[in-house]
Amino acid sequence: MNTQDLLNQIAFIKEIDKVKYIQRKTKLFNSDRCENDAEHSWHLALMAIVLAEHSNEPIDVLKVVKMVLIHDIVEIDAGDVFIYDTVKSHDNTDEERLAANRIFGLLPKNQAEKLIAIWEEFEAGETNEAKFARSMDRLEPLLQNTSNNGGTWKEFGVTYDKVYAKKSVIKNGSTSLWNYAEGLINESVEKGILKKE
Amino acid sequence: MNTQDLLNQIAFIKEIDKVKYIQRKTKLFNSDRCENDAEHSWHLALMAIVLAEHSNEPIDVLKVVKMVLIHDIVEIDAGDVFIYDTVKSHDNTDEERLAANRIFGLLPKNQAEKLIAIWEEFEAGETNEAKFARSMDRLEPLLQNTSNNGGTWKEFGVTYDKVYAKKSVIKNGSTSLWNYAEGLINESVEKGILKKE
Repeated sequence: MNTQDLLNQIAFIKEIDKVKYIQRKTKLFNSDRCENDAEHSWHLALMAIVLAEHSNEPIDVLKVVKMVLIHDIVEIDAGDVFIYDTVKSHDNTDEERLAANRIFGLLPKNQAEKLIAIWEEFEAGETNEAKFARSMDRLEPLLQNTSNNGGTWKEFGVTYDKVYAKKSVIKNGSTSLWNYAEGLINESVEKGILKKE
Repeated sequence: MNTQDLLNQIAFIKEIDKVKYIQRKTKLFNSDRCENDAEHSWHLALMAIVLAEHSNEPIDVLKVVKMVLIHDIVEIDAGDVFIYDTVKSHDNTDEERLAANRIFGLLPKNQAEKLIAIWEEFEAGETNEAKFARSMDRLEPLLQNTSNNGGTWKEFGVTYDKVYAKKSVIKNGSTSLWNYAEGLINESVEKGILKKE
């Protein structure tokens, strides 16, 4: 074993502890307590394991799990951007790329390159694994908001059209999960917890 | 797709949100904020991915990741037991088995049986995957306590002998990680943040 490699891995393990301090806008289920990125990533990983059979295409589950476990690590430097933010875009900013290079770059070179490639693949959203991982990332807050009487939709005045557009990405990963999600969105409008205008 | 199966999976996904409320004794790195079980499980999953090469024996990384992601779910019903608790044992209590049956039992039968088997395998600690997963579970709080000037060792008066005995389990999963861990323990004694008596 190369001792320096292990020390680099330990440095990475310590650094990513900061993910536990990054607050999301979304609240836990039936709760007014914000979720943090570590809790969110843990939940998505278990969702991916439990829901894998619903993927439209065959997937490498370990790769999906890696994607969701690491997808928010860049926010240590770049911060969390609300999905319905009208000013700042979440995806593929230069800031996020710099963050990926710095944080994954703490690892031994070969390992850093592999994890950066997996993060890039998730961000691009084109492979079967990335599509399914992104479905998980869109489904969890939908479940949370419906359990919280509208949650962030109500809090930030987000309307049906925007929710429908963002959530329809779920269908790229799983038609059956999208059918379920679409039902939840429509039900939310009927209940008055999601406004059409 | 069987709609009832999906509804059962969603019920499980909602139930395990409670893991985010279970406080451990151990604090985050360089922090006085307690870690919760979801954050802890996320961290162990990434440690397993990053440190897999140090396993003594070949391992199925996805299985290790599943083990660490689910290992504390039973605490929703059974509660967290401090590893140095002198009254209550953590391992394999009837309460934990009942909890596993109830919580994983929310899933479709076949899936529930598979996850209960993985949880049992982790608890038994006999396979290569379980040994490595348990190494992760012992290594993380060691890293945390050394970053926190003694952390729970100081707070609860835990001495070197007890720490050494509990942590030596790491060597069953990885000799090289145990060498590193043993060095940290000895260094902690030298620094006076872990007492010999």
